[in-house]
Amino acid sequence: MGRKRAFSAVFVCLAVSLGWCCSVLASDPLPSWNNGPVKTAIVEFVTAVSDQSGADYVEPAERIATFDNDGTLWIEYPMYTQLLFAVDRVRALAPQHPEWKTTQPFKAVLEGDMKTVAASGMQGVMEILMASHAGMTSEQFTDQASQWLATTKQKRFDRVFTELAYQPQLELLEYLRANGFKTFIVSGGGIAFMRPVTEQMYGIPPEQVVGSSIETEYVEQDGKRVIVRKPKIHFIDDKAGKPVGIHRYIGRRPILAFGNSDGDIEMVEYTTAGEGRRLGLFVHHDDSEREYAYDRESHVGKMDKALDRADEEGWIIVSMKNDWKTVFPKQ
Amino acid sequence: MGRKRAFSAVFVCLAVSLGWCCSVLASDPLPSWNNGPVKTAIVEFVTAVSDQSGADYVEPAERIATFDNDGTLWIEYPMYTQLLFAVDRVRALAPQHPEWKTTQPFKAVLEGDMKTVAASGMQGVMEILMASHAGMTSEQFTDQASQWLATTKQKRFDRVFTELAYQPQLELLEYLRANGFKTFIVSGGGIAFMRPVTEQMYGIPPEQVVGSSIETEYVEQDGKRVIVRKPKIHFIDDKAGKPVGIHRYIGRRPILAFGNSDGDIEMVEYTTAGEGRRLGLFVHHDDSEREYAYDRESHVGKMDKALDRADEEGWIIVSMKNDWKTVFPKQ
Repeated sequence: MGRKRAFSAVFVCLAVSLGWCCSVLASDPLPSWNNGPVKTAIVEFVTAVSDQSGADYVEPAERIATFDNDGTLWIEYPMYTQLLFAVDRVRALAPQHPEWKTTQPFKAVLEGDMKTVAASGMQGVMEILMASHAGMTSEQFTDQASQWLATTKQKRFDRVFTELAYQPQLELLEYLRANGFKTFIVSGGGIAFMRPVTEQMYGIPPEQVVGSSIETEYVEQDGKRVIVRKPKIHFIDDKAGKPVGIHRYIGRRPILAFGNSDGDIEMVEYTTAGEGRRLGLFVHHDDSEREYAYDRESHVGKMDKALDRADEEGWIIVSMKNDWKTVFPKQ
Repeated sequence: MGRKRAFSAVFVCLAVSLGWCCSVLASDPLPSWNNGPVKTAIVEFVTAVSDQSGADYVEPAERIATFDNDGTLWIEYPMYTQLLFAVDRVRALAPQHPEWKTTQPFKAVLEGDMKTVAASGMQGVMEILMASHAGMTSEQFTDQASQWLATTKQKRFDRVFTELAYQPQLELLEYLRANGFKTFIVSGGGIAFMRPVTEQMYGIPPEQVVGSSIETEYVEQDGKRVIVRKPKIHFIDDKAGKPVGIHRYIGRRPILAFGNSDGDIEMVEYTTAGEGRRLGLFVHHDDSEREYAYDRESHVGKMDKALDRADEEGWIIVSMKNDWKTVFPKQ
């Protein structure tokens, strides 16, 4: 290679590299969010709390962001994902539990009456969980949950559940972490059901997941030292339980909280009531075409009071239909 | 500056920089640990689980290390630090509680009979905590604890408690983190008492602290949305509670656990019973000259069964006297 050609080659490489760098730097960190007031509010908030010279600066250690899971990070309609898992478990265990044929909510589960199951609410969900999820070790349960989530398809979208996170939220989580935030899940769902997949799905490790739980016990079983799951509710991480769960597990008040239902009101309220700049958001499921439309009257992910209070509280209602360019990741 | 002098200056800078780098790389990450089998075992373990080409390699995400606090990371003798804090609180609140004069363990606290207080064990400690620590908001309690810890002096060493962490352990925590570990505290002590100072003292953020706790509630009080502390035990993170707490808060089985008393046996047992390479350690307080000597008969930090079982289980007994070059940080 002559000197001139070598020089040209180096120059081209340099130009390409610089061009790539600039395009990365200038690129939109939230490409699946449509431009508009919601996206602007998010970017302005993140910029303000990260700007060391600004009045709203927040130390990285205090940049705690909490996200609900069902309906906020992944699909929850027409039935909570964990409830579908529980239904499959209850059906498999039914022969050993003849009494379930006449006891709610098990009767409804076995009869495929999902409306009655949904109407039984978080308490009903927890009962099904206790009965169908206890008695094994924590490691056995982890295997069952991750296996089911990676292989069971959601009917309408014909995708496994680990592929049904919302793409705009994956970008937001990544954008927050790139700006020094620590991202947590704070969900009414079972902590043990989420943890096996949150790292892979959202980049959130198990120790940054807060959720509902059943009692556990440390025992020696078949010569092994294990944690076994007991059929008793330990904690319901919903409504006023969410700030309690945040305090218990995280120990700091978040500066950003994102939910999608009335069960998230207290979490968002607790977050935005703190001193300094705060951001509270709710996903509004108003997109029957690309996902689902449900709010005030829904048995799943009911959002009624949050819609009423949003304006007064300064909470942002994120329209799935208008604010999200895409809903699910490309396959 | 002539061309030659400029060249020399650059060369000197480069040489100095490289020399500095090499000396940092070659320096001992655990200078306060005496050379010997204990230090060798720690370094060999960390090297083995971090070596991607080795048989004992562990993914960084799974490199979870849990440390007891009282007697393992900071001083606990002749009285648990939190109990001294509780004593000060009880004395301050005594005029509002005439019944304490005749009720144990409060009677002993007010009479300065610390032996009886210590003998009341973790249960007694929790009773004092409940009575003296409840009724305020989480934020008020955080202020009280951090203020007390930063200003109250331990009598024998004439130092504030935030300066009574063990120097070798500070180095070990830092060494583990530098090798991809995530470090957690798993203590029988109160989670809310430790969290205000763990970041500053150990580089461990509040969300990586597991401990005992009382019930809390989310309420609106004086127009503010706060967490208030209730006079009811929620969880005692001691003995078989430690693996339960680890599972609940962290969600993974640690690969390294470090304790100092029989209350840590289950944590270390659970850790070392996992598959793959594991390390379990106990600090043995055998140094009456530089700290204290206590073990099988002590009311505080009793270590009896752990000493008996260590050999068989492959747990390492760390002699404060022989394995630690220094005990406390230089002032």
